Amino acid sequence: MIKKVITRAQSNWTKAEGPHHHIVISSRIRLARNLMKLGMPVFQKESDGFSVLQKVKNAVETISCEGKEKLYFYQLQEIPHLERQILLEKHLISPEHCEEGVNKGLIISEDEVISIMINEEDHLRMQAFFPGLQLDKAWELANQLDDALENELEFAFDSKKGYLTACPTNVGTGLRASVMLHLPALSLTKQVGRVLSSLGQLGFTARGLYGEGTEATGNLYQLSNQITLGQTEMDIIQNLTTLALQIVEKEESTRNWLLKENPLRIKDRVGRAYGILQNAAILTSQEALNYLSDVRMGVDMGLLKGLLEQDNLSELMVLAQPAFIQKYMGKIMDAQERDEVRARLFNKKFQKGGKYNVFQIHTTRAACSFFGWRRS
Amino acid sequence: MIKKVITRAQSNWTKAEGPHHHIVISSRIRLARNLMKLGMPVFQKESDGFSVLQKVKNAVETISCEGKEKLYFYQLQEIPHLERQILLEKHLISPEHCEEGVNKGLIISEDEVISIMINEEDHLRMQAFFPGLQLDKAWELANQLDDALENELEFAFDSKKGYLTACPTNVGTGLRASVMLHLPALSLTKQVGRVLSSLGQLGFTARGLYGEGTEATGNLYQLSNQITLGQTEMDIIQNLTTLALQIVEKEESTRNWLLKENPLRIKDRVGRAYGILQNAAILTSQEALNYLSDVRMGVDMGLLKGLLEQDNLSELMVLAQPAFIQKYMGKIMDAQERDEVRARLFNKKFQKGGKYNVFQIHTTRAACSFFGWRRS
Repeated sequence: MIKKVITRAQSNWTKAEGPHHHIVISSRIRLARNLMKLGMPVFQKESDGFSVLQKVKNAVETISCEGKEKLYFYQLQEIPHLERQILLEKHLISPEHCEEGVNKGLIISEDEVISIMINEEDHLRMQAFFPGLQLDKAWELANQLDDALENELEFAFDSKKGYLTACPTNVGTGLRASVMLHLPALSLTKQVGRVLSSLGQLGFTARGLYGEGTEATGNLYQLSNQITLGQTEMDIIQNLTTLALQIVEKEESTRNWLLKENPLRIKDRVGRAYGILQNAAILTSQEALNYLSDVRMGVDMGLLKGLLEQDNLSELMVLAQPAFIQKYMGKIMDAQERDEVRARLFNKKFQKGGKYNVFQIHTTRAACSFFGWRRS
Repeated sequence: MIKKVITRAQSNWTKAEGPHHHIVISSRIRLARNLMKLGMPVFQKESDGFSVLQKVKNAVETISCEGKEKLYFYQLQEIPHLERQILLEKHLISPEHCEEGVNKGLIISEDEVISIMINEEDHLRMQAFFPGLQLDKAWELANQLDDALENELEFAFDSKKGYLTACPTNVGTGLRASVMLHLPALSLTKQVGRVLSSLGQLGFTARGLYGEGTEATGNLYQLSNQITLGQTEMDIIQNLTTLALQIVEKEESTRNWLLKENPLRIKDRVGRAYGILQNAAILTSQEALNYLSDVRMGVDMGLLKGLLEQDNLSELMVLAQPAFIQKYMGKIMDAQERDEVRARLFNKKFQKGGKYNVFQIHTTRAACSFFGWRRS
C-alpha cells in the first residue's frame, strides 16, 4: 500500500476540494498521545519503544473506525530513506520521524487522510488531513480515531492537566490544529508579515512551508495554535477557523484590488512564471514552487483559463520536491541533475498545444528495477 | 518613399547577410564633409544653412552613382517628430539631427543603404550601411558617393590636414568606420569590459547601442575609430576589420566554451528569455532588447532550431523601439502603454504552434488616418 502513497503526487486531501480551497490548501488536526507506564521516546528504553509499537499496532488492527478506510502499519526502518523523504514531502511524517531510528512506526490510510506516527516525540501523533478549510471535519475524524484507540490503549492523562505529552507546549488537549494557506497577493503587496505577526497575541503561530520566517517558499504559510491547555478543542478549532477566514478575506480583497488597480502587473507576473516553467532548462525546487504559486494565483484569478487546474498544480507542488522527483525518475540524482530533470518535466507539463494533461505518475521500468518493485 | 522607410522594421542592411553576420550586425562608413565659404552649422547664418541645403540637394539630383538606387531628398522639418525618431531608431539620423531645427536635411536611398545628413554637425555626413562585416564594401560605396559629390560641390580641404570638419576629432579623412557587434557570450562571462577597454590604445572606441558604458542594452556594442588624421582610409578600415575579426573569434570561442562547459546554463537563459517574450504582459524596450539578445544567441547556437530566424530578430529589435511601436500601432502612447502593447506584440510573434511568422508591418486604418497617409 505504501508504494501507492509514494508513487502518486496527488493525495486525497490535496485535491482542490473543500471550502475556500483556492486559498486554504489543507486543514490538519494532530493529536499527541502517550501510553501509561512506558518511557517517552526521547529517553526511551528500546524495549519500551518496542512495546509501544506493538501495542499501537495491535490496537489499530482491533479498532473499527466506522466508514473509514483500512489502516496500514509500517516500521519506518522497512521504508528506504528516499521513500521516507517522500512521506516527509507529503507532510505525512515529520522531519524527525524521517531520520534513522529504531521502533519508529507509521500507520496510514490508503487515502492518506489518516496518518499516525509512532514513537516520534510522543508515543502517538495521529493526524487527519482534509482539503480546504475543514478543521471541524478533520477534528471529527481524528476524535473518532482517538476515542477508538483510547478504548484499546491506556493514554497518559491527568485530570487537571489533561493529556500528558513530551513537550509541555502540547500538554492539555494535545491538539495541534493547522491550516496551510496560499497567500501570493499578501506576499506581493508586502502585507503578509504584518498580517501574520499579529497572530502571536491570539495564541496562533505561522511558519513557511519549510520553517519559520515571514517569506515562505511558494507563498505557502502554515497557521497553527500555540496553546493546547485551558481551551477546549472546539474553541481552538473555531478560533483558528475564524482567523483563517479573516486571512482568506484579506487575501481575496488584495487579489481583487491588484486586479482592479494594476491588472497588467498580475498578468505579467503570472505570464512570466508560466513562460519560465515552460522553457527553463534548470529549475530548483524553490524556484519551481515560487513560479507554481504565481501560476496558481493566475488560475484562481481566471487569468489562465482552461490551461491548468488547481489539482494539477497541487500535484506539481509535490513533483517539484527533491525526493519525489528522484522516485519519479527512478534514480538517485544530485541537486544539479534534479534541477535539470525538474525543468524538463515542468517544460513538458506546461507545454502548449492543448489542455494541460492531468499528471499521472507512471512507474518506469528503471524505477521498478531500482526500487525492486514488481511492475503493476 | 520615406513612408516605406518608416513603416518597415527591416532595412536592406539589417538582413542577416554578409560575412560573420551572426556576430557582426552591420558595418557603417560615415564621411564628414563641409562646403567652402559657408558657415558650419553650429555658428551658421540661416541663409548659409539654406545655401548648403540647396547646393547638396542640387548636387544629389545631378550625380549618377552608377548601379546605385535613386536618392531622395527631405527637409527634416517636413517629417513629423515621431517619424524622425524612427529614423533615429534605425540609425539613419543622429540624436542631434532628430531635434527641431531649420535647414536640416536628409538624403536617403530606398534600400536605406545610403543616407546623408545635411547641416548636422558638419554640412554633410554621408553614411553607407552594409549587413555583416563589410567595411570595405561600405567604404567603396561611400567613396564613390563622395567622389561624385565632390565633382559638384567644393569641399573644405586643406592640403596638410585633409578634410576640414566642425569637430577636430574628424579632421583628416573625416572618416568614421564602425561595426555593430552582438556579444552576448562575452557579456555573460564578464569579459566584455576587458576586451573592449583595450581598444583605446589601438585608436578605437566602443559604446553601447545607447551611449558609452561597458554593459550595453541587448549586448550590442558599436566599435569605431577615434583617429581620422595621419592614417589612410584603407588603414583605418583594415585595422577595424582585423579588430572586429579578433572579437568575433573571441565571442565564438566563448560561445563554444559555454556550450561545452555548461550547455544547460545557456539553454536555461535562452529558454527563459523565450518564455518571457512569449508570456510577459509588460515589456520595456530595454528588457525586450536584452531578451532578444538571449534568443538571438540561442538561434545562433542552434538551440532554437526552426523557431526563429535572425532576420526576424533584427526586425523585432526595431519593433522593440519606442517610436517604431507607436507608428506600428498608429497612435501616440506613453511609456506604460507602449510596454503593454510591446508585450502583446512580442507574445504574438513568439507564439507556438507553428513556425515563427516573418514580421510584416501592415499599415492599419488607424495608422493611416493618424498620419494622414493614403492606404496602399
